[in-house]
Amino acid sequence: MKRVADRLLIAGVGLIGGSLALALRQRGVVGEIVGLGRSRRNMRVALERGIIDRIERDPARAAEGVDMVVVAVPVRAIASVVTSLAPHLPARAVVTDAGSVKGPIVAAVERALGRGASRFCGAHPIAGTEDSGAASATESLLEGERCVLTPTPRTSRTTQRRIRALWAGAGMRVETLPAAEHDPIFALVSHLPHIAAFALVRTVAEAGGAPRALTYAAGGFRDGTRVAGSSPEMWTDIFLANRRAVTKAIDQFIGSCTKLRKAIADEDHEALEAELVAAQRVRRRLAAPGPGPARRRRR
Amino acid sequence: MKRVADRLLIAGVGLIGGSLALALRQRGVVGEIVGLGRSRRNMRVALERGIIDRIERDPARAAEGVDMVVVAVPVRAIASVVTSLAPHLPARAVVTDAGSVKGPIVAAVERALGRGASRFCGAHPIAGTEDSGAASATESLLEGERCVLTPTPRTSRTTQRRIRALWAGAGMRVETLPAAEHDPIFALVSHLPHIAAFALVRTVAEAGGAPRALTYAAGGFRDGTRVAGSSPEMWTDIFLANRRAVTKAIDQFIGSCTKLRKAIADEDHEALEAELVAAQRVRRRLAAPGPGPARRRRR
Repeated sequence: MKRVADRLLIAGVGLIGGSLALALRQRGVVGEIVGLGRSRRNMRVALERGIIDRIERDPARAAEGVDMVVVAVPVRAIASVVTSLAPHLPARAVVTDAGSVKGPIVAAVERALGRGASRFCGAHPIAGTEDSGAASATESLLEGERCVLTPTPRTSRTTQRRIRALWAGAGMRVETLPAAEHDPIFALVSHLPHIAAFALVRTVAEAGGAPRALTYAAGGFRDGTRVAGSSPEMWTDIFLANRRAVTKAIDQFIGSCTKLRKAIADEDHEALEAELVAAQRVRRRLAAPGPGPARRRRR
Repeated sequence: MKRVADRLLIAGVGLIGGSLALALRQRGVVGEIVGLGRSRRNMRVALERGIIDRIERDPARAAEGVDMVVVAVPVRAIASVVTSLAPHLPARAVVTDAGSVKGPIVAAVERALGRGASRFCGAHPIAGTEDSGAASATESLLEGERCVLTPTPRTSRTTQRRIRALWAGAGMRVETLPAAEHDPIFALVSHLPHIAAFALVRTVAEAGGAPRALTYAAGGFRDGTRVAGSSPEMWTDIFLANRRAVTKAIDQFIGSCTKLRKAIADEDHEALEAELVAAQRVRRRLAAPGPGPARRRRR
């Protein structure tokens, strides 16, 4: 495979940034990897694990001679990290991010880059676990997963081609989607399940006798709330950045809960079972191997 | 280990009834196992897999000479199955069930048994998957899991001792809990997560562009909705049987969702993050190996 970058800067060497670095190294498609980050401990872990070749703290030094930049910091910090790097970037450097919200992020980054906005292409690598930090990074996390690029009319063709090559170089299946379509979709299939998980845990914790009740938590509760172990900082940022679509998704979800509640309170056996049958049908189709990602992953 | 029954009748040879039979056989603590069930196909599977020794369709013949009965049918049918068996049961036979709702079930069964109520002890084996039927039964499903008995003042000591020996004989960790405590706890830690999973799937399915959105469903959605693949018939029964506690749990859950929604809409970063931190703390404690069931299961 062709080399995607001679000197790659990763700002924010956490689960995603670190896993990207490991995958690129394993595939031999990257030269030097420079790490920029605020936590000394995390950066030391990244260096010790061989995720990055050197640590930089100063944006000017970090940007020196790089031909590609990945900003894999929490959503709230993306635009400000790009702003701090912008004046120091070589002319040929292209920039991408890894945020799970795209509309407001892409707009803010394009504003920060001004005339250099053609060199940015937003990305959302769809992968992750409830863990975070360089210690959790693995070279297989991104492999075979989808990565959504959200180029705008300002993104140059060259930028888009090079950023596509970067994520594909880590083994991801890359596609494009307008940011305005991306955000409502992920509000529903990703952000809302996180809201539900956090709310489930809070509900049980606030009910009387919670510690004892939790000892009875079996598979349904454990699976349904797994993502509530995710980073509060990261998810606070995501929910706020995508707040229009997320609040709408919560309203629709409360509507669905209320519908089930009414059928139960009314002892409307037929309506209740019809709702559950409809849900089961959709869920089982999701589980079944098909032409989508699930099948490809099994190969 | 001591034999728990010479002739055991299992009414409803599904995931739980079948797994119980397989575990008792493996441990050599049971004599003959008679199966009673309405689905010919399922009963044939049970017979072919060696889960039961013979199939009976008539309650009178099924009850003949049995010394123990497990009623592992859907919650709604438990009392009526007990009613149909009651007149034919030998004097020494004791009866248990496997319903995940206890208050109304135990009351209905005790009414059905009249003076024979001393021979019944309700049980809730805390195990299961989203699959159902004899084909899904395994000899390890119940092993090491908890089984809650809900004896009442009418339950005789002998009955309680024998029913405890039955579930323990399948490798379960048996404990007792009043039905009035059992139902609100399980409304929160089991029934509510199922409501959330069904509602999550319905929300996405009813939003525009659902088929496409669902192709982006990653781990958070898949884990959070796994139990929405469960039997609609079984869960309709459970929600209705436990409707007081379940509607209360849904109200509390909608309250938690609304609180998160408000913090997001108000862009109240601090309040939002505090909620998520509190949830993460509880969830991580649940995941950590401790003196509870998670650790024991790992042994």
